Amino acid sequence: MRLRVEPPRRVDAYAFTHRLRVRFADTDAMGIVHHAAYLPYLEEARVEYLRAIGHPYLEVRAEGFDFAVLEATLSYLAPLRFDDVVDVHLLVAESTRATFQIAYLLTVDGRPSATAVTVHGCITPDGRPTRLPPWLRSAVGDGPR
Amino acid sequence: MRLRVEPPRRVDAYAFTHRLRVRFADTDAMGIVHHAAYLPYLEEARVEYLRAIGHPYLEVRAEGFDFAVLEATLSYLAPLRFDDVVDVHLLVAESTRATFQIAYLLTVDGRPSATAVTVHGCITPDGRPTRLPPWLRSAVGDGPR
Amino acid sequence: MRLRVEPPRRVDAYAFTHRLRVRFADTDAMGIVHHAAYLPYLEEARVEYLRAIGHPYLEVRAEGFDFAVLEATLSYLAPLRFDDVVDVHLLVAESTRATFQIAYLLTVDGRPSATAVTVHGCITPDGRPTRLPPWLRSAVGDGPR
Amino acid sequence: MRLRVEPPRRVDAYAFTHRLRVRFADTDAMGIVHHAAYLPYLEEARVEYLRAIGHPYLEVRAEGFDFAVLEATLSYLAPLRFDDVVDVHLLVAESTRATFQIAYLLTVDGRPSATAVTVHGCITPDGRPTRLPPWLRSAVGDGPR
Repeated sequence: MRLRVEPPRRVDAYAFTHRLRVRFADTDAMGIVHHAAYLPYLEEARVEYLRAIGHPYLEVRAEGFDFAVLEATLSYLAPLRFDDVVDVHLLVAESTRATFQIAYLLTVDGRPSATAVTVHGCITPDGRPTRLPPWLRSAVGDGPR
Repeated sequence: MRLRVEPPRRVDAYAFTHRLRVRFADTDAMGIVHHAAYLPYLEEARVEYLRAIGHPYLEVRAEGFDFAVLEATLSYLAPLRFDDVVDVHLLVAESTRATFQIAYLLTVDGRPSATAVTVHGCITPDGRPTRLPPWLRSAVGDGPR
Repeated sequence: MRLRVEPPRRVDAYAFTHRLRVRFADTDAMGIVHHAAYLPYLEEARVEYLRAIGHPYLEVRAEGFDFAVLEATLSYLAPLRFDDVVDVHLLVAESTRATFQIAYLLTVDGRPSATAVTVHGCITPDGRPTRLPPWLRSAVGDGPR
Repeated sequence: MRLRVEPPRRVDAYAFTHRLRVRFADTDAMGIVHHAAYLPYLEEARVEYLRAIGHPYLEVRAEGFDFAVLEATLSYLAPLRFDDVVDVHLLVAESTRATFQIAYLLTVDGRPSATAVTVHGCITPDGRPTRLPPWLRSAVGDGPR
């Protein structure tokens, strides 16, 4: 396991926030959001983060990089429900030559509902590990602490 | 709309049956299977049908054909629930030079729970319409009536 | 089949538009949005439409109504791709005492990518058909033609 | 984080195996299975495990227990692709009074493609933590080592 990061539970520790709304299709027969629906929320937030820092994912791919998911961990603190407005806070928390980790805090009305970490490997289109682009290395730890 | 086929509600009108089990992840907060979860059931049944008639989809693609979904229609007759064992009955119902239609009946313990039709276009890897392979033309209407 | 409505292909025939962005998770190995991912787009647009006309779905349910999906039909005109910004235009097209139909047009940069119709039954919490609430009957055909 | 378990990479360390096949709907535009699709695979394997040891999940719920997902972690070792036959090996690895952890190894043709751990809390229908049923406590570590 490469996972080392412990996601902070304070909103102001995060550099970026993406807001989304829970779809009915994301719920399950327990009346709450199914635990598998959170990973696409994290992905959607990553995509918006890359756009916000000037590197939309389609451009990243056009430049010959892909960010494979190597690991993911999720901690479910309080259920999400249909129509909830969820703030996905994220922070590029750590990097090596060819990998980086993103920490997430999900909140509803400011109350934590989940934390997560994803570990990504920077790869070429044919799947070989490659060095992170410089702009990504400099994003690590960016933002208010 | 190309859709013309009315799926029979009698099980014995179908040439092929694929059995699957409803996942908890397929349910929604109404306690039943979400209406979007049915399309992957139909797709899974098509894939097994192609394998059963000796043309696994990976081989079809390797031979330079792809079957794009052009239209789909679903009629929800009775809810599906978690852990239900679902029989997806299917029949290649109609074809033109470059398209074909598949009719479906979903049953649980022999009772109809849904019908559906999908319309597919035969295309080349670069997305241009092409003639159906001969084995597919001869599959039309195949099976007991 | 109850489906009777033919969705117009002109944007200005629709009363309401909801804009969303395609997630990477919605794509498939053909490089385009999987055909099953469209139904949640329609649902998300319906939910926003109900909110826009002053009847959020959670309130509708609290008032003792549920809108079961009875039928759905989709026509895929041009592929959607990752990161596309999709406008889902919708119109309450028709109603009976206990059912209503919604027509949809999906566009990207003004170009049609799909049309759809969903048929809904108005039911009580225990699943019995019931009359449409009056505000919904009066929404039929609402909007510019 | 409650996660402590390191899933073994040897198939014979696991008590139970569930075989499934990758759906086309599970793939994404990188041509491989999307990372969010693995969690439903784990869930499907858990459901089959409970059935195999004589405690189908519907009966567990009827007896007044629910198994909420508290944490999940996944490690993606090698991509899964459309039509792959996946063996999901699992083991109830650890328990406390009110929680238990399951370790997973996913293999294709005997080669590891992913490991995972899920942490579950035993709860009552109204969501309060409760003691594990005795049969579950005795399942911990069950199976060949």
